[in-house]
Amino acid sequence: MAVINVILSGGVGSRLWPLSRKSRPKQYIPLFEGQTLFQMCALRNGPLSDQISVIGSVDNYKLSQQDLQAVQIEEYTEVIEALPRNTAASIAFAAFAADPEDILFVTPSDHIISGTEAYTEAVARAVTLAREGWLVTFGAIPEHPETGYGYIEHDDQHTVLSFKEKPGIDQAKEYVRKGNYLWNSGMFCFKASLYLDELKKYAGAVYDAAKEAMSKIDQGFLPEREMMAIPSISVDYAVMEHSDKIKVIPFTFEWNDLGSFDALWSYMEKKDGTRQGKAENLALGTKKHVEFIGLKDIIYVETEDAVLIMPRNQSQEVKKVYERLEKEKPELLK
Amino acid sequence: MAVINVILSGGVGSRLWPLSRKSRPKQYIPLFEGQTLFQMCALRNGPLSDQISVIGSVDNYKLSQQDLQAVQIEEYTEVIEALPRNTAASIAFAAFAADPEDILFVTPSDHIISGTEAYTEAVARAVTLAREGWLVTFGAIPEHPETGYGYIEHDDQHTVLSFKEKPGIDQAKEYVRKGNYLWNSGMFCFKASLYLDELKKYAGAVYDAAKEAMSKIDQGFLPEREMMAIPSISVDYAVMEHSDKIKVIPFTFEWNDLGSFDALWSYMEKKDGTRQGKAENLALGTKKHVEFIGLKDIIYVETEDAVLIMPRNQSQEVKKVYERLEKEKPELLK
Repeated sequence: MAVINVILSGGVGSRLWPLSRKSRPKQYIPLFEGQTLFQMCALRNGPLSDQISVIGSVDNYKLSQQDLQAVQIEEYTEVIEALPRNTAASIAFAAFAADPEDILFVTPSDHIISGTEAYTEAVARAVTLAREGWLVTFGAIPEHPETGYGYIEHDDQHTVLSFKEKPGIDQAKEYVRKGNYLWNSGMFCFKASLYLDELKKYAGAVYDAAKEAMSKIDQGFLPEREMMAIPSISVDYAVMEHSDKIKVIPFTFEWNDLGSFDALWSYMEKKDGTRQGKAENLALGTKKHVEFIGLKDIIYVETEDAVLIMPRNQSQEVKKVYERLEKEKPELLK
Repeated sequence: MAVINVILSGGVGSRLWPLSRKSRPKQYIPLFEGQTLFQMCALRNGPLSDQISVIGSVDNYKLSQQDLQAVQIEEYTEVIEALPRNTAASIAFAAFAADPEDILFVTPSDHIISGTEAYTEAVARAVTLAREGWLVTFGAIPEHPETGYGYIEHDDQHTVLSFKEKPGIDQAKEYVRKGNYLWNSGMFCFKASLYLDELKKYAGAVYDAAKEAMSKIDQGFLPEREMMAIPSISVDYAVMEHSDKIKVIPFTFEWNDLGSFDALWSYMEKKDGTRQGKAENLALGTKKHVEFIGLKDIIYVETEDAVLIMPRNQSQEVKKVYERLEKEKPELLK
């Protein structure tokens, strides 16, 4: 009946290039007063859980180990994926490794959360609902009609009616107006056995292939061949959009998925004392003196080998640059 | 009766900061396929003159020496000013150092000129007119109503009627429409004796103080105390705007004073094969891969310790940044 914080750490964060690289995804960049998002995640959830289980990849498990060691977290288990197969499978690995009655509290490793009290309270409620046999999700109360997030529609009892993909701006406005739509935060809480039951029911191929891979796990490492056979789909597609046992916890704590430089800037603006965040333009990653002339809302990012300059509202386009460079100059993504 | 190319090399080029610094004014930056503007000036004028005389300063005479050595120019004279006193005095030093009948062909060291044949021809005409007893200036035929240059009004015989300071845009359009106005290029040609006569007549204080300083010259170095006493005014104010013995040679060769990043970009655009110049945005001084997203006509300049980002049409504002940094962070100008 332990509560296990399952930390998903497979993302590469292409939308924070050139800061984030294949060799250092965004959750491992020490952007936040020397701490990484991965460290902040583990430190935040440690007091709320009995165990930590890191689901990472061969490309980054050493970064996870270094990060945890640096903040004196020494007891944790890890599952190391030979290749990425999306969240449905990653959570299945954690569920197979746990006792059936254990509660999995699943968190991405690359989000920012502030407001300890509200967060603690929300997690406690989620654990209670999970023990009662619900798949629990966490939904942020929308601050504006954001088009970068999926939405969760719920009823008066916080039972989930539907999951919505990232909407267009008009649709997003409609969601916000209706009042019973929340931003999908990507955090979940449920019994290991219930997750596996629902996965088997709605995405049997993922369940079977993940079980097969898990049977061949060797000192935490999952084998490449068996992982190749796993369908790559998200937990939302595989389970959440089908199950009728889902509750959502609307939360009020501050949450930011740092899915873009715009989101990073918003975080800096809200955070007191971050001088950069309040400037007319934002310079990141540089120790140089930066002068902007006649510009506003420009983001400048500098690394050893690459520079990115764009208006704040173009942050979503970084992903396209990343994809283009994958073909043209892959060495810049390493 | 020698023709002496007087190279004026006192400018600091604050409008090309952060590329140009006090320790490396723009004429000494190897921007042009490894050559500096100073070198290009000496190489261009060497074949058109009998001697080279460099009028520089204690801050940069070593850069001049290195530059000339690197392009195998070994015979030249130099006058090293203890502090800058503007062009009227600088040219006076060259004139005092020459024989009265020598022809001084005075050129700034930080301009770009292309089109050898037209240039050679214009200089030859200037030398002829100078021998006939004229103060000769060179005027570029305006390509557009530029507000960054002074203008020269002339009559049918190319006799100068007036010098105009940098105009507003409406005034500039009027000059271009009238057809007998040229951009003041800052190049001159005249007999040493005539220049000194006119200087004595119209700016006696400069003449006297420059003569006094010149009498104390020691191995090329002009003394600080005597230089302090020299009024700091330009040759335009001191002589050209008053004398009635001035001819202007309208020229058609390509000329660019590189007085701003905008001017530098224009040069790159015109020059064949300069890939950078034709891009939507311009990145200078960096070896990094630079990505612009959703931006056009942006200039990015990177150096070891400073970065500048601005729209092309704000290039003139760099001077203000330079002046502000002079108070706030003078170490960034060194």
